[in-house]
Amino acid sequence: MNPSGGPIRIALVGGSGYAGFEILRWVGRHPGAEVVGVFGPEFELGTIDSFHPLLREQVKLSQELFSEKAVGELEADLVMLCVPHEIAMSYVPSLRKLGLRVIDWSADYRLSDAAVYEKWYCPHTDPAGLAEAVYGLPEFFAEKIASANLVANPGCYPTCAVLAIAPLLTAGLIEPEGIVVNAITGVSGAGRKPSLEYHFPERNENFGPYGTIGAHRHQPEMEQVLTQITGRETSVLFLPHLSPMDRGMLCTIYAAPAGPEATEQKLTAALEAAYRDKPFVRVRTDMLPATKYVANTNYCDVAVRIAKGKVIIFSALDNLLKGASTQAIQNMNLMFGLDETTGLF
Amino acid sequence: MNPSGGPIRIALVGGSGYAGFEILRWVGRHPGAEVVGVFGPEFELGTIDSFHPLLREQVKLSQELFSEKAVGELEADLVMLCVPHEIAMSYVPSLRKLGLRVIDWSADYRLSDAAVYEKWYCPHTDPAGLAEAVYGLPEFFAEKIASANLVANPGCYPTCAVLAIAPLLTAGLIEPEGIVVNAITGVSGAGRKPSLEYHFPERNENFGPYGTIGAHRHQPEMEQVLTQITGRETSVLFLPHLSPMDRGMLCTIYAAPAGPEATEQKLTAALEAAYRDKPFVRVRTDMLPATKYVANTNYCDVAVRIAKGKVIIFSALDNLLKGASTQAIQNMNLMFGLDETTGLF
Amino acid sequence: MNPSGGPIRIALVGGSGYAGFEILRWVGRHPGAEVVGVFGPEFELGTIDSFHPLLREQVKLSQELFSEKAVGELEADLVMLCVPHEIAMSYVPSLRKLGLRVIDWSADYRLSDAAVYEKWYCPHTDPAGLAEAVYGLPEFFAEKIASANLVANPGCYPTCAVLAIAPLLTAGLIEPEGIVVNAITGVSGAGRKPSLEYHFPERNENFGPYGTIGAHRHQPEMEQVLTQITGRETSVLFLPHLSPMDRGMLCTIYAAPAGPEATEQKLTAALEAAYRDKPFVRVRTDMLPATKYVANTNYCDVAVRIAKGKVIIFSALDNLLKGASTQAIQNMNLMFGLDETTGLF
Amino acid sequence: MNPSGGPIRIALVGGSGYAGFEILRWVGRHPGAEVVGVFGPEFELGTIDSFHPLLREQVKLSQELFSEKAVGELEADLVMLCVPHEIAMSYVPSLRKLGLRVIDWSADYRLSDAAVYEKWYCPHTDPAGLAEAVYGLPEFFAEKIASANLVANPGCYPTCAVLAIAPLLTAGLIEPEGIVVNAITGVSGAGRKPSLEYHFPERNENFGPYGTIGAHRHQPEMEQVLTQITGRETSVLFLPHLSPMDRGMLCTIYAAPAGPEATEQKLTAALEAAYRDKPFVRVRTDMLPATKYVANTNYCDVAVRIAKGKVIIFSALDNLLKGASTQAIQNMNLMFGLDETTGLF
Repeated sequence: MNPSGGPIRIALVGGSGYAGFEILRWVGRHPGAEVVGVFGPEFELGTIDSFHPLLREQVKLSQELFSEKAVGELEADLVMLCVPHEIAMSYVPSLRKLGLRVIDWSADYRLSDAAVYEKWYCPHTDPAGLAEAVYGLPEFFAEKIASANLVANPGCYPTCAVLAIAPLLTAGLIEPEGIVVNAITGVSGAGRKPSLEYHFPERNENFGPYGTIGAHRHQPEMEQVLTQITGRETSVLFLPHLSPMDRGMLCTIYAAPAGPEATEQKLTAALEAAYRDKPFVRVRTDMLPATKYVANTNYCDVAVRIAKGKVIIFSALDNLLKGASTQAIQNMNLMFGLDETTGLF
Repeated sequence: MNPSGGPIRIALVGGSGYAGFEILRWVGRHPGAEVVGVFGPEFELGTIDSFHPLLREQVKLSQELFSEKAVGELEADLVMLCVPHEIAMSYVPSLRKLGLRVIDWSADYRLSDAAVYEKWYCPHTDPAGLAEAVYGLPEFFAEKIASANLVANPGCYPTCAVLAIAPLLTAGLIEPEGIVVNAITGVSGAGRKPSLEYHFPERNENFGPYGTIGAHRHQPEMEQVLTQITGRETSVLFLPHLSPMDRGMLCTIYAAPAGPEATEQKLTAALEAAYRDKPFVRVRTDMLPATKYVANTNYCDVAVRIAKGKVIIFSALDNLLKGASTQAIQNMNLMFGLDETTGLF
Repeated sequence: MNPSGGPIRIALVGGSGYAGFEILRWVGRHPGAEVVGVFGPEFELGTIDSFHPLLREQVKLSQELFSEKAVGELEADLVMLCVPHEIAMSYVPSLRKLGLRVIDWSADYRLSDAAVYEKWYCPHTDPAGLAEAVYGLPEFFAEKIASANLVANPGCYPTCAVLAIAPLLTAGLIEPEGIVVNAITGVSGAGRKPSLEYHFPERNENFGPYGTIGAHRHQPEMEQVLTQITGRETSVLFLPHLSPMDRGMLCTIYAAPAGPEATEQKLTAALEAAYRDKPFVRVRTDMLPATKYVANTNYCDVAVRIAKGKVIIFSALDNLLKGASTQAIQNMNLMFGLDETTGLF
Repeated sequence: MNPSGGPIRIALVGGSGYAGFEILRWVGRHPGAEVVGVFGPEFELGTIDSFHPLLREQVKLSQELFSEKAVGELEADLVMLCVPHEIAMSYVPSLRKLGLRVIDWSADYRLSDAAVYEKWYCPHTDPAGLAEAVYGLPEFFAEKIASANLVANPGCYPTCAVLAIAPLLTAGLIEPEGIVVNAITGVSGAGRKPSLEYHFPERNENFGPYGTIGAHRHQPEMEQVLTQITGRETSVLFLPHLSPMDRGMLCTIYAAPAGPEATEQKLTAALEAAYRDKPFVRVRTDMLPATKYVANTNYCDVAVRIAKGKVIIFSALDNLLKGASTQAIQNMNLMFGLDETTGLF
């Protein structure tokens, strides 16, 4: 609930893509929140159902021209910002000046060190925001999120990988050096902009790696967050692939066991201890994680094995949900004092 | 074989799309033909493997700038023209003037009546070509094709529908009025140009009709060809859908039986009689046609049923092969005196 | 709410298939209902998450051995019966004797005439139940459903076809004879029992018709319901196909216009009038229906066109939801005096 | 050609699965070979088109009851044995006694050490055959294959992994310890026997690991072959996943560089040197390997990168072709003195 007892009033900036779609759908199911306005750039205005035919009748808003002023007039409690990096940090300072709390989907506030941000993206233009921002991974930063005014919603891959790795690092069961995160995502992870690479007949029945190997921007994000959580300098090689499906993400992670005490039993116990009270991470002992069994949910499923002297951790989530939009709702719940699980079944 | 006894020398114009890809792959398997040059527009030049990574090592040609002169210098026996309609008929007259035989993939020479062509496309600029052109459906026009200098390679949907309907019309077993062709195609049928409509996450797990209902340009083509083959004025409602798969086409056709003598047995017998000596049409009595069982082949599978007072004909083929590229090779085989099946297993 | 003011207590019989899965997922989102017990046959007992890994933590029930006694002890308000036909009607009499209200997923109570049932299925063993049962299509039978004790949840195809056809028949705009329903479904429509036909590599990249043409059991169901709604003897040819996708259903329906007054405008207006106050049928004028834009919802999208002297109606829904499980929840809402849309966003 | 100058006469044992299908299709395209008989067990007899509807008219054989006598009467030059392990080695001795040359698809003759075979499979019953057998990876054992009478056709995963790793190990550029092979396959890799795991709605839109982690039987095969080729004791952790597609395999391999001299340039050069004269391995410098660009071919595409102190090698092939059936044809070509590429475009 917002301070006056009504539902949380959300201004959504960037409603035309897949993340915006999921926000609109899931907030529609949420008993204590509503989207009161949607904003976008000049070339993407129109009724929400013109972008998302599925939402006709359910969402009767239109995407209107973004301006800080227009957002300010909404008397919103929260801005959800689904715009590209660089644009996000050009909007945030004035939104914050209006007293608005913000959850930002972009990478602009995820890397706490401006120099690291500059190395992987571009010069950072809002160092004050950077200092204020909280990394929105509720399983590890719930308290800070609760009082945060600016939350950086994590990347999909870092969410998936960090949830799998962090407890084992913290427990001293795996080495922080030489971790390999071999990952796959469904094609919605590439966004909604058409290109030959994502043209149906090119992508269907196709599986392969993408991008520049070793240079994905989620790699430093993983390293930073793991280091922050565990207090140990962590080094990760991250390598993503595209699988011919709409949604879903799976990380297969290889790490060196810290010593003979790192048995499968102890590794599993460390995951279970870390997530006993966390409603959205399930340690699977009944099966190995697979994307279909977390699709359309806010769950992340993890499991761990040992073979050939290596620790292997599996982690699966829905890239658009726990990897993006429902994780943002989970953050919102925490920020507004609701039960973390509200509206997320 | 060409007149001098060597392999047929093919100049391919338009090698960057899916039809061009299949031509290059299947001619590569053909014992009596070879592609000796590939041409395209200025914005699409480069090695064949830069367009079609699968063909690396197999096809070492480059797509070079098209000009009648460049094609003429190749001493080709045949030009295969995979370019959009309107462009095709701007190239054909000069190619024919060079003495080259041409198989054209576009619609420019399919509709024998220039007025009909103009109604559905645009004014026709090569009436001489139109008069000379032969419709390249080998099951019905093999003799004309054998001596043709300009062959109009049929549309994928007309091939699929006409092969199913024509023998039953000819046998007087169905009425020529009120035929409904309900059709589906895989997404490669939409070509290789990216757009939101064919973006993987929009099209995957999606099935629906497309285009303006009742106004697909393959409808008059079906009607004309059926009328020509059967000598009876034929009227067809054609309605296409997209199915989430790469390739394959299925027509489910509804027609009125011509009378009580139109039994399932007689209908099947009429199809069998028509295709007894046609190597690429299979009348299925063991199963109903399905796209997977004609994929990557030059076959068209047909079957017929009666139910609720309607004749239902099923027809399946691979939209890129019998619906386009291997049908062109079948035409080429006939034009150059080879066995119709050469290179088409 | 149930009579004592708490949530509606549901006993689910048959929780291991896809329909059971959706009931468990959607009731989990419902603010006024809960599943209090799940029952099945001896060879299918176990925790719900052993059948449906996605539901782990969300649903902590086990599927226990079905007996009328065990169900009776639950003090349930409603039994949802997801078992095969013939078994359903062997359970219903004793459940009704216990005073339980029942929604039945099977065909056992859909065909009001026992002779018709026997012709298409087997002899009917519960004529009393048949007399009592209400056909659970809320858009047409809401009042009867509200007070019903036994609701026959409609077949997926009949729901999709009847919603498209009925208003146009009632308005006298199309002829009741010679209607063709050309339909496709995703593979979940075939149930969860493995067989070669639904083995992934056989079905993927495959599209085709299935079953005995003209003999699908949903055909008499469509005819009966259309006749009941419109008071006009209606005849339908129904022809289903499988499309390579998980979920979704599309009917492309061909009918004869009743006369020149049956314009596209009037046909659309008739649909709009029929569904103006029905929250789950959307008359699309912005686009043609497609399965992706109703997937994971309780919506049915319809649109109508005229071409070549035929009326063409399109209708799309999610076969597991509006075609099965969320339609049952919609029925439940009506039966228990809740707003029809509760829990169905 | 066979000794008497005609086409190679092939007896195929086990024609009902996906490997048998591909053999029948590709031998049909081969100018110097023909399948003269197909054999199977009692419960799987019938015309080839009853198993493989696509092959109707192309293959007119029936699968007949297997017996050594029946095969012997065919006067075949070669037996292709597509039967499960354990059965294969029960057939081979008597086939060899008949003087028949054999290519065996199963694992029975792949592991040269009977003790290793017994550890992973069962006791070996044909040690004489084991001693005689040649591992059919033409890129490394072409000479031995040429004169072999019993060829063990390699596993799909070992083919994919060994082609990527062997040249770099031989060149001393990577360490033989601690290699990780993270692999994915299309679902045809699981064979044609239906089960819930491969039921379309379970597998579609699903990605995950399978089997017992670290215990796949292809792991010791990889290790043995790499050790044999390179002379260095090699240790591999192999971890397979299923991707929702029909066909295709991709290995993403992580290895430790042997020292600072292991630059990307040198690694690429080592692959290029190894495969300069090998027609079916393509070292890709234009793109990273992806399954679609080797599908329906006998190619294996490889590429190598360095990142974060690790060597990453990518390798893609078609699991049914270079991973099974066309590799067998490549072996056959070598065994009968044909050009290695005959019939394999």
